[in-house]
Amino acid sequence: MLPPMKIGVLGTGTVGRTVGTKLVELGHEVTIGSRTANNEQAAEWVDATGERAAQGTFADAAAFGEIVFNCTAGSASLEALGSVPGEALAGKILVDVANPLDFSGGMPPTLSVANDDSLGEQIQRALPGTRVVKALNTVNANVMVEPGRVPEDHDLFVCGNDEGAKAEVSELLESFGWPRERILDLGDITGARAMEMYLPLWLRLLRKLGTSEFNVRVLYRPSS
Amino acid sequence: MLPPMKIGVLGTGTVGRTVGTKLVELGHEVTIGSRTANNEQAAEWVDATGERAAQGTFADAAAFGEIVFNCTAGSASLEALGSVPGEALAGKILVDVANPLDFSGGMPPTLSVANDDSLGEQIQRALPGTRVVKALNTVNANVMVEPGRVPEDHDLFVCGNDEGAKAEVSELLESFGWPRERILDLGDITGARAMEMYLPLWLRLLRKLGTSEFNVRVLYRPSS
Repeated sequence: MLPPMKIGVLGTGTVGRTVGTKLVELGHEVTIGSRTANNEQAAEWVDATGERAAQGTFADAAAFGEIVFNCTAGSASLEALGSVPGEALAGKILVDVANPLDFSGGMPPTLSVANDDSLGEQIQRALPGTRVVKALNTVNANVMVEPGRVPEDHDLFVCGNDEGAKAEVSELLESFGWPRERILDLGDITGARAMEMYLPLWLRLLRKLGTSEFNVRVLYRPSS
Repeated sequence: MLPPMKIGVLGTGTVGRTVGTKLVELGHEVTIGSRTANNEQAAEWVDATGERAAQGTFADAAAFGEIVFNCTAGSASLEALGSVPGEALAGKILVDVANPLDFSGGMPPTLSVANDDSLGEQIQRALPGTRVVKALNTVNANVMVEPGRVPEDHDLFVCGNDEGAKAEVSELLESFGWPRERILDLGDITGARAMEMYLPLWLRLLRKLGTSEFNVRVLYRPSS
């Protein structure tokens, strides 16, 4: 069990509230951040979640957290992070859960960045003093915090430039219910290209399966 | 067991030869096509594979096949298909196995088309009278024709605009060893975006796992 921490969650949508609730249930103190300090969805979440939950601006949540989750929409992530004073995130771990989905052309969305760059990399470049770890963006919010909703063993991908940060995030993910051996480290932050470009397949599978609660397992025969 | 067919295979690289050999083993007659009629790799393959194997130009292979596989490099596919007279492929099924990998910027490759278009769609647009089915591009050549090289159950994706073509291709894939329930139809040919954009993840996993003989299984709890 991890010791209780102060954690900031940027974004008050389904992902932010779901991750925030799980963190509070695990004993952590959580400040959830949005553009304004008095966001209504955040206020309802604070009321429902109890005394270890609070709300504020993106800057408040970032300053509060020893670890910070980016659960904003990918199209809003850079602006949200840009509203946070640089020192608020200096040296900290930022878990980037966002996907750079662009819905401006209708459904299905495209990616606003792909191929030779990624949102994860853009965020790491914008915050060179922050240890960005891309994680959780390849599963639905409910599955993020309760992997047992999907049957059998299935895999979660992480990437980032800082080994220590990935180890800490992996511990947090274990506390969410992800077995350590099912957390696959894809290397440095450029792995975010792979993790974000998986989204079109995720969206096709969503349509095919009729449920968002699915995931993939990577199978191979280890060389002996 | 499918009745013996005449099948054209475009491309004499590892994928084309591996698929061609499997098809010959299954009793089909195969002409493998390349830019020139006397390609050396193709000649060696014909010698090694026996009397049901032949070689020729892309146009020869396309004209020969009742079904045609595109196993050329993605960067060369449109040019290869452009060298085939339109009537040679009219009404036929073209199984597009290629990935639009662009190695010009070094490793890892990027995709030369992605996001709001795909190689599968480009090929379908170039050959409007041909029934293009994207398949097999998400696994290594050995796994394509011998899925049991990867342990347990794992999934193969197909997509295309013609339901009958997908059904025929699925039968062929079953004869390769893919169980019918593990062949996931992702819908129309725009699903090729999802299947091709999976490649960056495939390439990362290749590096991590140290083997190209892997695949993914999609897991979910079917609604009852």
